[in-house]
Amino acid sequence: MYLRSFLFLIAFFISTNAFAQTAADSVFIRKIFDEALTNGQSYKNLDYLSNKIGGRLSGSLEAEKAVQWSRQLMESYGFDKVYLQEVMVPHWVRGAKEKASIQTGKTKVEVPICALGGSVSTGKTALTANIIEVKTLDELKALGRSKVQGKIIFFNRPMDPRHVQTFIAYGEAGDQRRQGPSEAAKLGAVGVIVRSLNLFQDDFPHTGSLRYDESVPKIPAAAISTNGADKLSQMLKTDQNLKFSFEMHCQTLPDVKSYNVIGELRGSEKPNEIIAVGGHLDSWDLADGAHDDGTGCTQSIEVLRLFKSMNYRPKRTIRAVMFMNEENGVRGGRKYAELAKTNNESHVAAIESDAGGFTPRGFGIEGQPDKIKALQNWKPLLAPYGLHDIGPGHAGTDIGPLGEADKNATLIGFLPDSQRYFQYHHASNDTFDKVNKRELELGGASMAALVYLLDKYGLDGGK
Amino acid sequence: MYLRSFLFLIAFFISTNAFAQTAADSVFIRKIFDEALTNGQSYKNLDYLSNKIGGRLSGSLEAEKAVQWSRQLMESYGFDKVYLQEVMVPHWVRGAKEKASIQTGKTKVEVPICALGGSVSTGKTALTANIIEVKTLDELKALGRSKVQGKIIFFNRPMDPRHVQTFIAYGEAGDQRRQGPSEAAKLGAVGVIVRSLNLFQDDFPHTGSLRYDESVPKIPAAAISTNGADKLSQMLKTDQNLKFSFEMHCQTLPDVKSYNVIGELRGSEKPNEIIAVGGHLDSWDLADGAHDDGTGCTQSIEVLRLFKSMNYRPKRTIRAVMFMNEENGVRGGRKYAELAKTNNESHVAAIESDAGGFTPRGFGIEGQPDKIKALQNWKPLLAPYGLHDIGPGHAGTDIGPLGEADKNATLIGFLPDSQRYFQYHHASNDTFDKVNKRELELGGASMAALVYLLDKYGLDGGK
Repeated sequence: MYLRSFLFLIAFFISTNAFAQTAADSVFIRKIFDEALTNGQSYKNLDYLSNKIGGRLSGSLEAEKAVQWSRQLMESYGFDKVYLQEVMVPHWVRGAKEKASIQTGKTKVEVPICALGGSVSTGKTALTANIIEVKTLDELKALGRSKVQGKIIFFNRPMDPRHVQTFIAYGEAGDQRRQGPSEAAKLGAVGVIVRSLNLFQDDFPHTGSLRYDESVPKIPAAAISTNGADKLSQMLKTDQNLKFSFEMHCQTLPDVKSYNVIGELRGSEKPNEIIAVGGHLDSWDLADGAHDDGTGCTQSIEVLRLFKSMNYRPKRTIRAVMFMNEENGVRGGRKYAELAKTNNESHVAAIESDAGGFTPRGFGIEGQPDKIKALQNWKPLLAPYGLHDIGPGHAGTDIGPLGEADKNATLIGFLPDSQRYFQYHHASNDTFDKVNKRELELGGASMAALVYLLDKYGLDGGK
Repeated sequence: MYLRSFLFLIAFFISTNAFAQTAADSVFIRKIFDEALTNGQSYKNLDYLSNKIGGRLSGSLEAEKAVQWSRQLMESYGFDKVYLQEVMVPHWVRGAKEKASIQTGKTKVEVPICALGGSVSTGKTALTANIIEVKTLDELKALGRSKVQGKIIFFNRPMDPRHVQTFIAYGEAGDQRRQGPSEAAKLGAVGVIVRSLNLFQDDFPHTGSLRYDESVPKIPAAAISTNGADKLSQMLKTDQNLKFSFEMHCQTLPDVKSYNVIGELRGSEKPNEIIAVGGHLDSWDLADGAHDDGTGCTQSIEVLRLFKSMNYRPKRTIRAVMFMNEENGVRGGRKYAELAKTNNESHVAAIESDAGGFTPRGFGIEGQPDKIKALQNWKPLLAPYGLHDIGPGHAGTDIGPLGEADKNATLIGFLPDSQRYFQYHHASNDTFDKVNKRELELGGASMAALVYLLDKYGLDGGK
């Protein structure tokens, strides 16, 4: 026997146990994907949620229907426990469809807008004023009160198309929508129009929440489609004194009682250690909310269904959480964290799927470096399914508060391919027909594979 | 100075050159993607090819228009040389739209079919006969002549949905379409119906080439939609004696003169070393052929346009090749290889994009192990763009003959995400609206990044 062979044998015996473990894991993960790709039910369930229930903004009848539907669905799957967490949510309504037009001389051009979530109305009639285009909040501030007073401010900085990961571009451009209205109001503006956070040129306005600063007047704010924004910008170049006119009848009604919806498979060995996987049940009102975030809900339920169908009994407690009110308040996420603290719950990890039902690419992690490392060690088991991007990243809005409440919880965001997301996000074209069955089912399987590893090994070195 | 620091410094000086090289490459590749994501023209060009020219089966007027269009487009970009390679191609025509129905008792159910490419017609009227369902060629052979004689054979083995890489499923199921008709004819069958090679349940029949064995009679063969196949299979369970009837008026006309279309940027240092990047200009006749393979053509032209726009002067000669007749003959691919041999050309590599315009995932390579290794060494430069899957794999049908003619040429297939491809492939829904601009442009940039590295370093250890 040559030395190299001998050394190889030694190495072999040392690592046999690890190999055996890995081989079993590889087989189990393959079975998860086989089940999802042959009998996956995310697509069928998303069809129901999108087409039979539809858009489900917090406080709406549809949101209530979605609560009941998801509870019944999880009960029908025979999960060990299905329950609701009561939470009061905001109730903003859009009212009659918005209208907007640009007037220059005798020309009047209509452009597609929609109210930003939470905006006040323009009153009973349209608001008409001169409009000033800016690209940044700093540019607005530099104008000063004298130039802004009485005007509408038009934020027109496009998302940067150069980011391959489009959520970075969304993050960079989002200040216009979130802070823009109150920053403009501070300088006396009467209204705000924001270029839609959309990477494509089209006629869909994209809504989304604004954040009013309570110390300044609330002024009406709307998103304009990317084509509309270009049109407006072009017309402003030839007539700085053109008038912009828009009419919105949105209002905020009293808070409404709603719920997070939770299903559980109880852990056989460590029932008090929880691995949560979730999405948000509410959506904007303009469309089905198929990608945002019907996807995350149906995939999360699917994770538990996959385990049930494979007769896999987890060591730890696995939870599917449908958070309520991600879009305009995060009340469900905060309530979940509050109750986790009250009940002294211990979360190993929480995984959120809120980036669309596209082909899986990996997971973004918020957590201690050793835990990120532990997750990265599973790359060889996950790479065969296209899950290569495993590293630090934003995890999810709903699970953020849990990270504050339970410092030991590792927060994980499911990362699907991001190229198409911002064509549909918060717009009336976020509909079921934009979802591909295989891409969606692969997402549920990817999360199930990770939950399986988290359940089996934890994140504290295999305990 | 501690030993470790010293060793580190040594290592640093040794590798500084490599680091500097890598940093410059990283910057250049970033610029390629920036240009593609801000000013990419693949999408605009594909719009023209798909919507102004349309389906372009070999020998058709549209194929001729596509030749002229792609030549003019490359000339308009100012490539160093644009030229045609004459090649005779088959001229098969579908004729009047196909019809098919299932008859059981007094019930007649129409089902969607389309002739397989190259099929003979059913004659002037419909062909009606009993039909036998089989799943495999072996199952057919086991039936024997006594059972098959005078019947239509129905191949109904679905693509296996469990393969994450869907081309594997296509490869496994393809024998039914390619060999099925002649294998059935050998046993006296009068016609063949093949389940569409489609991973989704819908009403689109998917065409594609069959291979007639010249030693047996040519019998008419069609694809049936996946829903239609399920319907037929279900009805056969209750009535084995039902009649299947289909009518097709396709025919093969004399060969037609056509062309490969080639554009070049001439190498500044090693003009005789060629790096080719290509797709096929012909498509099936049922749709635009946007994904198959308008994508590959416009992306290949884009690779050269990107270099021109960045004032990058390649060391080696870079070629964009629009191959003619991939779908039903590979005559263009064979002509290209033949002329490469005649002209003593030396190809470093040939890259083919013929898997759709979806988000890039990597490259599949046919070549010597050391060259595959050399390509894998570039992973750190390519991974930031989602290009993780770099390893052995099928490269492309058009460049296959070149691999035979020039044994030193490394063949590379561009690998986009494969989940959606077989919903559109060879069917009437392979249209421009199924293409996402960002996904398409990322493909052109991915190929340009690889061509840049191949041009700069070659595959023989950095020469």
